Amino acid sequence: MSSIKKIHHVAIAVTDLQQALVFWQDILGIENSELRDIPQEEAQVAFLPLGESEIELVFPTSNDSGLAKYISKRGAGIHHLCLEVDNLEAMLSRLKQNNIRLINEEPRVDQSGRRYAFIHPESAFGVLVELYEKIP
Amino acid sequence: MSSIKKIHHVAIAVTDLQQALVFWQDILGIENSELRDIPQEEAQVAFLPLGESEIELVFPTSNDSGLAKYISKRGAGIHHLCLEVDNLEAMLSRLKQNNIRLINEEPRVDQSGRRYAFIHPESAFGVLVELYEKIP
Repeated sequence: MSSIKKIHHVAIAVTDLQQALVFWQDILGIENSELRDIPQEEAQVAFLPLGESEIELVFPTSNDSGLAKYISKRGAGIHHLCLEVDNLEAMLSRLKQNNIRLINEEPRVDQSGRRYAFIHPESAFGVLVELYEKIP
Repeated sequence: MSSIKKIHHVAIAVTDLQQALVFWQDILGIENSELRDIPQEEAQVAFLPLGESEIELVFPTSNDSGLAKYISKRGAGIHHLCLEVDNLEAMLSRLKQNNIRLINEEPRVDQSGRRYAFIHPESAFGVLVELYEKIP
């Protein structure tokens, strides 16, 4: 049995990272802990920790990534909601048993070695949901 | 000086509350603590506490509310991001000084007596941001 304990992050697609940081960091006062290039996602990301969660400002560094296409189609705004799960394999099994459409049928691994998978928004009422496995 | 300490909730606009609860509650396993009619917002809301935050599933109960119009235009999905702030008046002053466009220039008060205000998505890079004042 797997369970979800918290919102890990809310990712916001932005068209200008420096301008977005003026709003989120300088005006709202949420400190940016790190600005990182993520070449395999063709994105630059600003991480703004907030309580037990994080706001992530995601800026596309190419014109043909999924993120860039999302922005062309829908405009800037909230891109996805990431939930932290204690057992990703068990959760993915449960989702498949319930005929939930997944973008990643198997866990993917990010730069830090952490495992994640996306649920297709079609099965999540329009929300792109990421599941991020908790580090034990 | 006012500061933001956590994500209070993420509100998700849904077109079928019972079906959305099947996904969020029965399959993902996030318990619904309360289902409430909010007549002044022409909405029915399911509250799903998650760590220090909450997922709110928001269903329009009329066809001409802002929420219903949002769904007609953009479809179901994440509607807004609510941040908890310790001093709403001070935060609204700071936002005005920085020429941030507000939907509510002055705090509004909800059913439980808690004060809140919305920032216009035009000034928040496409995100509808709600500020909710922390109960002292």
